Parts: sequence; C-alpha cells; structure tokens
Amino acid sequence: MNIGILGLGTVGGGVVNVLNKNQAQITRRSGDNINITHAAVRDTTQIRICPTEDIKLTQDPFEIINNNDIDVVLELMGGTGLAKDLVEQAIENGKHVVTANKALIAIHGNKLLALAKDNNTHLLFEAAVAGGIPILKILEQGLSANQIELVAGIINGTSNFILTEMRNKGRDFGDVLKEAQALGYAEDDPTFDVEGIDAAHKLAILASMAFGCELQFNQVSTEGISKISGEDITFATELGYTIKHLGIAKKLDGKLQMYVHPTLVPKTHLLSNVDGVMNSVLVKGNAVSETLYYGAGAGAEATASSVIANLIDIIKGTVNHDILGWKSLKNIPNCNTGDIESIFYLRLLTTDKLGVLADITATLANHNISVESVIQKQIDQKNNAHIAIITNLTKTSELNKAVAEIQTHDYIQEDVKIIFVKTLN
Amino acid sequence: MNIGILGLGTVGGGVVNVLNKNQAQITRRSGDNINITHAAVRDTTQIRICPTEDIKLTQDPFEIINNNDIDVVLELMGGTGLAKDLVEQAIENGKHVVTANKALIAIHGNKLLALAKDNNTHLLFEAAVAGGIPILKILEQGLSANQIELVAGIINGTSNFILTEMRNKGRDFGDVLKEAQALGYAEDDPTFDVEGIDAAHKLAILASMAFGCELQFNQVSTEGISKISGEDITFATELGYTIKHLGIAKKLDGKLQMYVHPTLVPKTHLLSNVDGVMNSVLVKGNAVSETLYYGAGAGAEATASSVIANLIDIIKGTVNHDILGWKSLKNIPNCNTGDIESIFYLRLLTTDKLGVLADITATLANHNISVESVIQKQIDQKNNAHIAIITNLTKTSELNKAVAEIQTHDYIQEDVKIIFVKTLN
Repeated sequence: MNIGILGLGTVGGGVVNVLNKNQAQITRRSGDNINITHAAVRDTTQIRICPTEDIKLTQDPFEIINNNDIDVVLELMGGTGLAKDLVEQAIENGKHVVTANKALIAIHGNKLLALAKDNNTHLLFEAAVAGGIPILKILEQGLSANQIELVAGIINGTSNFILTEMRNKGRDFGDVLKEAQALGYAEDDPTFDVEGIDAAHKLAILASMAFGCELQFNQVSTEGISKISGEDITFATELGYTIKHLGIAKKLDGKLQMYVHPTLVPKTHLLSNVDGVMNSVLVKGNAVSETLYYGAGAGAEATASSVIANLIDIIKGTVNHDILGWKSLKNIPNCNTGDIESIFYLRLLTTDKLGVLADITATLANHNISVESVIQKQIDQKNNAHIAIITNLTKTSELNKAVAEIQTHDYIQEDVKIIFVKTLN
Repeated sequence: MNIGILGLGTVGGGVVNVLNKNQAQITRRSGDNINITHAAVRDTTQIRICPTEDIKLTQDPFEIINNNDIDVVLELMGGTGLAKDLVEQAIENGKHVVTANKALIAIHGNKLLALAKDNNTHLLFEAAVAGGIPILKILEQGLSANQIELVAGIINGTSNFILTEMRNKGRDFGDVLKEAQALGYAEDDPTFDVEGIDAAHKLAILASMAFGCELQFNQVSTEGISKISGEDITFATELGYTIKHLGIAKKLDGKLQMYVHPTLVPKTHLLSNVDGVMNSVLVKGNAVSETLYYGAGAGAEATASSVIANLIDIIKGTVNHDILGWKSLKNIPNCNTGDIESIFYLRLLTTDKLGVLADITATLANHNISVESVIQKQIDQKNNAHIAIITNLTKTSELNKAVAEIQTHDYIQEDVKIIFVKTLN
C-alpha cells in the first residue's frame, strides 16, 4: 500500500513518526505494509519533526495525486482552496483519501463524498473531529444499532483550555488566549476557535454521522466564548455549574437542531470535569442511552492515531459510511431558526435600589418563566447590584421577549447576558 | 440474514425489542434485513419482555444450531457448560456466533476463536465487556495504530453501585449488596460480582484485545470489594481519593500484568466520578495517549446495542479480530506472580500510646517506603487509634515485608488493611 502525503507539518510528521514507531503493530493489524513514498511540502529544505530519507519530497502536490503507484492520499495541508481541488482530483484518479481537514469536510463534504462513492473510493476523516477519539467509528459502527437522540461535545480544545484557565486561576479571557497562541493550541486565525467556527465544522460532521443526513454546516447556530467574563465563571461556580463550550446536535420532533455555544453544565456531570485542551463527546442512543468518549482533541500523534486507523480501515475494508443512507433519506429539516427549549442563566447589572429584583422576576413570571436560583451581590464601588439568575425550562422566544422588556428599564446598566444551561439528561 | 437466539431472557428480549424499534436504521446501516426466526428457551409458555409472534420458540437449542437456514446464532443464555457445546457446534456448522457471555470467552475463548478461524466464521462478543460501550471495536479498530500501554476500567456495575452508595450515603457493604440484588443488578451468584470474578473475566478479554495476546483469565490477580469498610471510604475521601473497583492490564518491561482490585483513585480523575452501575474504561495508547470511554455496563437494551452492532459488523464485513496476530505472536509472558509497583493506602488499628506512629513510619522507612500523607483519629471508646497512611511509590514485595514486621507489634489490634492507590497517569 503506497501512500502520498499532502503536507508534512505537525500532523503529517506525526503520521510518519507513528508509522515508524508502531510498524510491527500496524502491519499486524492491517495485514499489509504501509509505505509513505511521497510527500508534497512548500519547502523541501525545511527541518521536519520526522525522518524523510525514505520519502520523496516534492513541491508539486499534483505529482502525488497523478502518480499511478500511489493508492491512498493523506490530505494534511488544511484549507478549503487548493486542498479541495487536490482531494477532488485524487478521488477522480481512483485514489482513496484520508483527511484531518474539518473545514473541507464540513463545507464540501457532501460533494466530495458523493464523488468518492461514484469513483468507488473511500474518503475518510476520523481525525477531523475530536482528534484521537475514534468518535466517527463509534457513531458509524459501535452504536450502529441505535437511533441517536443527542450528541453534545467539548470539541474545541483551545476554547476549553481558555475556560479552564479562567475558572481555575481567575485569569482574563484575553490573557489566556495569548498563552494558548504561544503554546500553539490556537488555530492560525484565533477567531476560528474562540468564535466557535472550528467547533461548528466539527459539529456538522458529527451530526451528519449521528443522524444519517447530509452535512449542513451553514445551519449550525454558532456563538463563541469571547463574551464570557470572569464574573460569569464565578457566578456559575457558585450556582453549582461549570461553563463549557459545547457543540450540541439533537433531534426534536423529527427535526435536527445544531448549536455551538457556551453552556452551564452541572459540576457533577462528567463533561464538567473535562479540562484543558482535552475533548469529550457525549452520545445518547435510544438503545444504549448515555455514553461518553474522552481524549486528546489535537496534537501530532493523537491526530496521527486517527489518520492511521483510517488507513488500516481502508486496507481491511472495515469502513461503513452511511452515504447510501444519506441519499435514500430525505434530509432531516433543520429547525434552528425556531425555538430552542432550555434552562437559561441570566446576568444583570442594575442600580441597587429597592424592588429591582422583584420587578425582574415579575417580568419573567409574566412570560411564564420562573426562577430556580438567584444570587445578588454588590461587588463594585458604584452602588450597582450584580445579579445572576437560573430560570426553569423555557423557550428562547419567550425568554427573548422577557429580556427585551427588562432591558427597557432605567435600572439596567448593561445588556443582559444570556447563557444556555444544560442538565444533559 | 436469518438469526437464531439461544436464550430469550433480559438480553435476548432486549435484542428483539431493539431490532423492532430501530428496524429502519438497522436495515440502512447493514444493507440487509435481520430476521430473528428461532429462539431456544427453557419454557415456551413463559411471558416475555418482547413480542414472539414471528419467532419460532423451541426448547431444543440444537434445533437452532443444526438449522441450515440460520446464518448467525446469538448465544445469550449464559454459563460455560451447554453454552460452550452449542457455540462449538454452531461454529462447526459454519454459523457466525455473537455472544454476550464473558465467562465463556474468558475461559474458552482461545479454543473457540481458533475454531471459528478454522471454519471461516466470526465469533464476536462486544457485549461481553462493558455492556453498551463499544470498547472492543475501539481497541481493535479505533485505536489500531497504537501500542496500548494501559487499560484500566470500572467494569463491574454492581461493585461500583455498592461503592457509590457506601460513599454517598454512609451505608454498609452488606446492606447495599442486598439492595443491589433486589434491584436485579447482582449476578445470580453475588460472589461473581463482589469478589471480582466477573471483572476478571472482562479484564482478560480487554487485555487480549488490547495487547494482541491469547486470553489468560487464570493469570488475573483478583480481589473483590467485600473487605472495604465504611472507615476506608471515609479515610479515602479525607485523603482526596475515591475507592473504585478497577481492572487494570498493563505492559511492564515487555510483560503483561493483569489485576482486579479496589483502588484509591484521585477525586479529580474522571474515573473517580463514574458512579452507580455505570462502567468506564481508560485506554492509554502510545500515539493517542489517554482516552476514556463511559456508558451503561448492563441492561437489556444497552447490551442489545452491542449484540446488534456485532450483527451489522458481520453483514458488512467490518470485523478486524486480531487472532492472526495472536497466533503469530508469542504470548506475552505474565508477571503477576512478581512485584507490582504502586502507591499504597494502609489502614491500621492500634492502641493509642506514645510512639506508635513513629514506630510504624520508622519500620516503613527501613524498607525505603516513605509516607506521603497520614491521618490519625481516636474514634471509638476503646482508646484505640485509627491510622490511615498513603505511601510513596514502592513494590508489593517491600511493602509486604514492612507490614509483616509492623504486624508483629503488640500495639496492632487487627490485620493491617492494604489497598492500591493509582494516579493513573
């Protein structure tokens, strides 16, 4: 089995290193020798994290995808421009493709998967979601007897690292973001991480695998963590929650909802204890009920673990993509534009005068929203009251009406902050 | 695809119910219709948890395994006597077999897997370990690029339920065991659960899949939870740990160690937060590093989820058992008879007189064992001291010598209790 790699950076180098160090194991599992024969790189003279003596380096990626001796192309260069053209042409040339590129799959996956099907090749992307956790294998095969009801995951390590540091050390968002970038955790463009776009790419892929429908990245309602303040984290802790950045996909009345946003998770829930750059995905099936999967969401060798598992899957034929299912199924209609039913956390800054809290809770009550917990503090020197409220179960439409009404009062000092609260059971 | 079931109790009934309720999903995933045509039961008139109109019930299991129209036999009756004969003969008749029977696989698996290989049939048993968690699929395929370094799991739900209740509610072991039996959690013979035999069966299977060696159930060093007292649980909590019943398999200097025993796990570790009847397995691979999997370890439909996933694997050919590997590999020698390196918890009951603690720590120091933490209390009316000690990293051989020496002193009021402590990283 001859392999050509597009991109020999962190992930590509990790793949070569893991293939070298675990050669005996991998040959035994796959029953074949996996030879990296070519790699396309921008600069053939650059120092690499892996040995390259046995690999022909080239600056022309088309030399790889047009090479008749190459059976599988690993697309590990990233991006959705050249990478898309190369993957397309590799598939048209009858090659299998393995990629770690979540943006490529989330945005162009429907077309590329259909193309792979037409060309009788495999297009696999285990490494694109949750790094080393074999979550797509689990959804497609391990839980194949289930109708999936819910997928909820911490699927962006950078956001989780930032939230963990903010909680554990009382640090500011901007301060931790800089450290994450220095540590190499953050993507080139940090907005992909902190504004939830990277998580939305991954959620679209997870939802497609879980619910057997086409990829619908543009239907994901997305909010990042950049507006989470230290005060929110402190209030959440006092109320018995941890703030996590979750991607959630679920079926409600036969429709699919996908949203990525900060979420208060009860401290006792396992997801609440997933810290730092680690990823974790909760999957609820209608037979197995709640299951959870945890591991490294990034890193050279963790990502390589998933890329090579896909290679072995191709050699052994242990692939069960559901694209036939997608084609035979009508797309599940998406209802994100409608209401989301949830518990909510509200944070308000008000002038500290008699009757404010009574007025707020009365307004909520007028919209059938009752208050489960409330904390009021006078923290600053300005005679302002800082209020955090946990509501009961309600709908975004009702909540937005109530908050708009509250927002009109003179005692409100800044926009009311709204964060979802999930009991996840 | 025609299926015959041996045993239509909780698991068998769950399989029929899940096949019925998820028929469209399962047909789509498998690309075939799965028909349960026959079921062998002890009493054909008994009321079942599943509909049986379309299933031919028989009291003669051989009617199923000798039926030429049946492609796959589901062995869901349990036991290692008749079940073994039936599985053997089904395989010899060219049928695939799926079983949830951990004792059968742990004890007779080597022979049965070799027989299946010789007869070109599949023998699959995802449901035998950790119920609905697809842990064997994960080890064999999801993490196939890794050399596994450690598997550590909470794999007996009854023991975990008992330990959780003891910790959360201060209840006694015997009291909770009775409740577990009343709730139907405990196996027919509760010693299988509370003495660790069930966990040892599962660990032997996990280790075989993880390390690519033959099943070696009789090499598992096994200790149950029946000697864990409320005092141990209180001390563990005060020291920052939770007592969990773990099955651990790891490679040390090229040798395999397998042991099942109560273990103090740091409160901050995810395994420490796996409560009640839930199961969880931690897997460390040399590429992916630490991963963890969580879900229901038992129950009709969670177990059925794994049984049916195996059925779909057989239809789609997505099986990658490593038995070829086993045959070509020399067995990894087991070194359980030798030393285990660990941190330890010691609990001592002594007369409360001057110099006792100094004498104990001096004896430990003589064996190069230093003390990380110690708590001493005078709880009872008898003027006795209750002492709990966490040691540093040492070996069982050294610890046993030191404890034997301590045990000779007059101030010792009862046998010193020793429990393993794992940091798991």
